[in-house]
Amino acid sequence: MLSSQLPTINILKQPTSANWVEQAISNLDTILLDHAQCERKAAGVALNLIFRYPSNARMVRELTKIAREELEHFEQVNQWLERRNIPMRPLTPPPYGAGLKAQIRPQESDRFLDSLLVSGLIEARSHERLGLLATHCPEPELARFYAGLMASEARHFGTYWVLADTYFDREIVKHRLDELAVIESELLANLHPEPRIHS
Amino acid sequence: MLSSQLPTINILKQPTSANWVEQAISNLDTILLDHAQCERKAAGVALNLIFRYPSNARMVRELTKIAREELEHFEQVNQWLERRNIPMRPLTPPPYGAGLKAQIRPQESDRFLDSLLVSGLIEARSHERLGLLATHCPEPELARFYAGLMASEARHFGTYWVLADTYFDREIVKHRLDELAVIESELLANLHPEPRIHS
Ligand SMILES: [Fe+2]
Ligand SMILES: [Fe+2]
Ligand SMILES: [Fe+2]
Ligand SMILES: [Fe+2]
Repeated sequence: MLSSQLPTINILKQPTSANWVEQAISNLDTILLDHAQCERKAAGVALNLIFRYPSNARMVRELTKIAREELEHFEQVNQWLERRNIPMRPLTPPPYGAGLKAQIRPQESDRFLDSLLVSGLIEARSHERLGLLATHCPEPELARFYAGLMASEARHFGTYWVLADTYFDREIVKHRLDELAVIESELLANLHPEPRIHS
Repeated sequence: MLSSQLPTINILKQPTSANWVEQAISNLDTILLDHAQCERKAAGVALNLIFRYPSNARMVRELTKIAREELEHFEQVNQWLERRNIPMRPLTPPPYGAGLKAQIRPQESDRFLDSLLVSGLIEARSHERLGLLATHCPEPELARFYAGLMASEARHFGTYWVLADTYFDREIVKHRLDELAVIESELLANLHPEPRIHS
């Protein structure tokens, strides 16, 4: 009953294109390098929210769990990099993250709501794309790794949604999530030339 | 003397004063609140170093471990806050952290070395002070909690030291650590009026 009202991972307005899958599968090493950065950033974003809103006990509890899991993912991706002898190196990020961040309205409490929803959308997209990697990756062990991670990212989306729903009126949350989801899909409408998790 | 009962990491130039112990023991709730912030910050500092120097694979590996442990500590301290019904609230930090940060030289590779050593010194001081709390805290269960954490903080100091020693000449590391340790003790020479882990 209550759960049927919750938006599921199908909040994404547009599915990822076949072009992205091709680009990613042809550049698995670069995708792994970028993936490591994504996991580190996901941990950092959760920590920043804890820093900015330290009095929201429930949020602090949930985001600490997420930050710990993202660091575990970061460690696991780094182990894959080591195993494949891919040297760590910085990559330029695609415009996706900055484009979404620019949508966060500066005034509180808008800023808090938008921060939770933008993080949630990134988790939802990561869930979708790790799922695509799990399906299309030609290396079975790596494919299984992606399949394991995609479930966590779906849970993370759920956590951000529930937190938004805890601190804000549900109708406001749904309306704003819908607006942001449109922009999120627009940001991915044209494939970024460099292979990235969010290219 | 109070502090001479405990083993300390001998790079600290001055042991913590009995005044600090008294202040802390009389304000255990505030100390717990501030301690939570310290653990969160320790995780954040490790993540920032990973972000700034992503190509140093050994550092990334070690600091990911530290960040994960600090988040675990953060979670544990937050559980203590909940158990004692202490509402989460922001606290003004004591001047200690900013004072140490101001010592980090802006040019690379000085900046990298100083960042590692400042983090190491903060870990060493945390180790010493959690040890004092373990000894003097009148509540046995809380005292045991502090005793458990103090060992991690000593290990963290060791990690930062080993990393500095990995990337820099040992004589340079020792000389700079010595300089920074003098300043670290000076920053704590006068007890900050508000009870904090680093007051
Ligand atoms: Fe993740
Ligand atoms: Fe995630
Ligand atoms: Fe810690
Ligand atoms: Fe530590």
